Amino acid sequence: MRVDGDRFLADLHALRGFGASGVGRGVARPAYSEADLAARGWLAERMAGAGLEVQVDPMGSVFGLSEGRSLLLGSHSDSQPEGGWLDGALGVIAGLEVARAAREAGAPPVSVVSFQDEEGRFGVTTGSAVWGGNLRFDAALELTDRDGIALAEARVGAGESWVAPERFTGYLEMHIEQGPVLDQAQEAVGVVDAIVGIRDMTITFEGQQNHAGTTPMALRRDAFQALSAFNEALNDRLRNVVTPATVWTIGHVRLHPDAHSIVPGRAVFSMQWRDGDPERLRRMEGIIRETAHQVAEARGMSLSFGEMLGLEPVAMDPGLRAALEASAEEIAPGRWRRMPSGALHDATNVARLMPVGMLFVPSIGGISHDFAEHTEEADLVRGLEVLAGAVARLA
Amino acid sequence: MRVDGDRFLADLHALRGFGASGVGRGVARPAYSEADLAARGWLAERMAGAGLEVQVDPMGSVFGLSEGRSLLLGSHSDSQPEGGWLDGALGVIAGLEVARAAREAGAPPVSVVSFQDEEGRFGVTTGSAVWGGNLRFDAALELTDRDGIALAEARVGAGESWVAPERFTGYLEMHIEQGPVLDQAQEAVGVVDAIVGIRDMTITFEGQQNHAGTTPMALRRDAFQALSAFNEALNDRLRNVVTPATVWTIGHVRLHPDAHSIVPGRAVFSMQWRDGDPERLRRMEGIIRETAHQVAEARGMSLSFGEMLGLEPVAMDPGLRAALEASAEEIAPGRWRRMPSGALHDATNVARLMPVGMLFVPSIGGISHDFAEHTEEADLVRGLEVLAGAVARLA
Repeated sequence: MRVDGDRFLADLHALRGFGASGVGRGVARPAYSEADLAARGWLAERMAGAGLEVQVDPMGSVFGLSEGRSLLLGSHSDSQPEGGWLDGALGVIAGLEVARAAREAGAPPVSVVSFQDEEGRFGVTTGSAVWGGNLRFDAALELTDRDGIALAEARVGAGESWVAPERFTGYLEMHIEQGPVLDQAQEAVGVVDAIVGIRDMTITFEGQQNHAGTTPMALRRDAFQALSAFNEALNDRLRNVVTPATVWTIGHVRLHPDAHSIVPGRAVFSMQWRDGDPERLRRMEGIIRETAHQVAEARGMSLSFGEMLGLEPVAMDPGLRAALEASAEEIAPGRWRRMPSGALHDATNVARLMPVGMLFVPSIGGISHDFAEHTEEADLVRGLEVLAGAVARLA
Repeated sequence: MRVDGDRFLADLHALRGFGASGVGRGVARPAYSEADLAARGWLAERMAGAGLEVQVDPMGSVFGLSEGRSLLLGSHSDSQPEGGWLDGALGVIAGLEVARAAREAGAPPVSVVSFQDEEGRFGVTTGSAVWGGNLRFDAALELTDRDGIALAEARVGAGESWVAPERFTGYLEMHIEQGPVLDQAQEAVGVVDAIVGIRDMTITFEGQQNHAGTTPMALRRDAFQALSAFNEALNDRLRNVVTPATVWTIGHVRLHPDAHSIVPGRAVFSMQWRDGDPERLRRMEGIIRETAHQVAEARGMSLSFGEMLGLEPVAMDPGLRAALEASAEEIAPGRWRRMPSGALHDATNVARLMPVGMLFVPSIGGISHDFAEHTEEADLVRGLEVLAGAVARLA
């Protein structure tokens, strides 16, 4: 099977024309927007042109189905409100090109999908979440976007019937990394070993609000100082349990009353951590809770934890991963790595239905969810070739 | 001269009746409010009853003037929108009682003042700031409150002419501490050596906003982490230059974009520090700037400092202070201390016109600017006696 890099790039640029923004390579193609629906219409035509039977499911996810059981390749073609041209689109067009090439070569056929609302206008990876059984369809229909529009109302052009997952032997998704690792290492390909799990909770230190002029340092119970001490102690303690791929973030902080002249009496902040290993996530939780308790006790604070939200890590299928790795080593010898995905993808949901594998290409500067998102065309084509090579190995 | 504690407390409770809130001992008597103007009318009657000539200046500050040159005693009778019954009121009524007692004893006469808008409905210590020459009257008239009402419009009942500062030999202000030091130490009186100076600026660390899942820890330029590291390093370094009375506060923090799943690219925060010694304030500024520069450089941040706002420390007059100390040692031997005022007071402005001295009584729990503000009546009367003893020594 030989993929055609020029045809692939031409389709990728054509898809970018739907919702193309005036700025650089930017795209504005949120789920069910006019641009998204037009792009899906064009995509359905290209699928049909590749000899695939088009079926749009009740969420609006567009499938291009080959006859009989097959691999499913794809991603999503909706974008962030201010998104880049490759996030999602790359995996869909790469799938399309591999399906075309397989047909031309008389190789076992391949099916293609563009899931709907991966970018979460309504939920989180909404289309694949419903298909994969992580979200009930009737619950999804009641989700609303920021403007209060319900998904049930926005769902223009959606079909009547679901695609049976039993049609597929496995799912492969090619995606930009959306992080800086491959770009910084000057590597061409990442084969994903797991989509990391996420833990996220809000923590509150409550001390004593005081006048910032009349309250001596020794008598303060300053909630910002508690947060800072917690953060430093946590960074120190986590070093013993983490890997270079583990991440943790305090991204949101709210002090009360948040004034220059008042010792803050309350600090509410977000604590999020991600790792591919559920046991490590659990050990980190223990350290986070223990450190917060110790800081609170030492500083006379009351402490409360919000509800902990969690998404479990999703391990990639060893067989699909081996095929991707063998193909990567052939196409980009010494220039690929095994790595976790720190971001969620449609593959997270599809993993409930079948074996899944994922492949990354570099994101220049690690930039994504931004008009400036980009990848060199040579790297896009190299990724396509690794994907095609893996499909050939699995045939 | 013998002050009458019961008469003093009765007047203090009577003043509390103006704008008394439904909650505990709370008072709502902002400058020029109906309750404030009624209180000032009542105060003028009490001053006249004490044989003083009442003059209201163009800011609405109410003076009770004795004949000839005299000491001036007082504070302010306006309150915070949700204030306590003692903040300001105590110093005014103590001055009134000492003036009465001086007249009854045939001692040298004493004048009294209640400055207007110390609590800053329009500015900061607005009435005394204009009288002391720290704020031009025409500029003050253009100040507006939170509702957009101009001081020129709100200034009901203000007089036509200014009171000549040359009438006065010095100014003594008795006030609640508004901090926890005396209460925690179970002491009765604080003699102020200086009203501390304030430095205040906004600092910004700008790093790189990133996806909190796909950006490895080692490649992050996280602005919150820079803030936390700065805070810890600063606390450590300041220990070498501060005294137990020095304070510094980070009371306001704003992260951008302030989301759980995004590595914060920007942290904007307030840095305020106070001390009675201008040289120490300057050394602290050097350490703050240097620490911020080092953290920014080590973490690849850009750094910017906002305009530094500064109020200079105001030293109390040695002669007035000595009189207060001698009186404190007589009335409350071993139960008083010399201490700085961490809060601003009208005395800050009056110090531009004449020698000033200040006296603190305990604030229970250090609470002020709150309905719960309180001081034991025995401590109020003891403070009054110390004030009267100092006036007698200065006669």
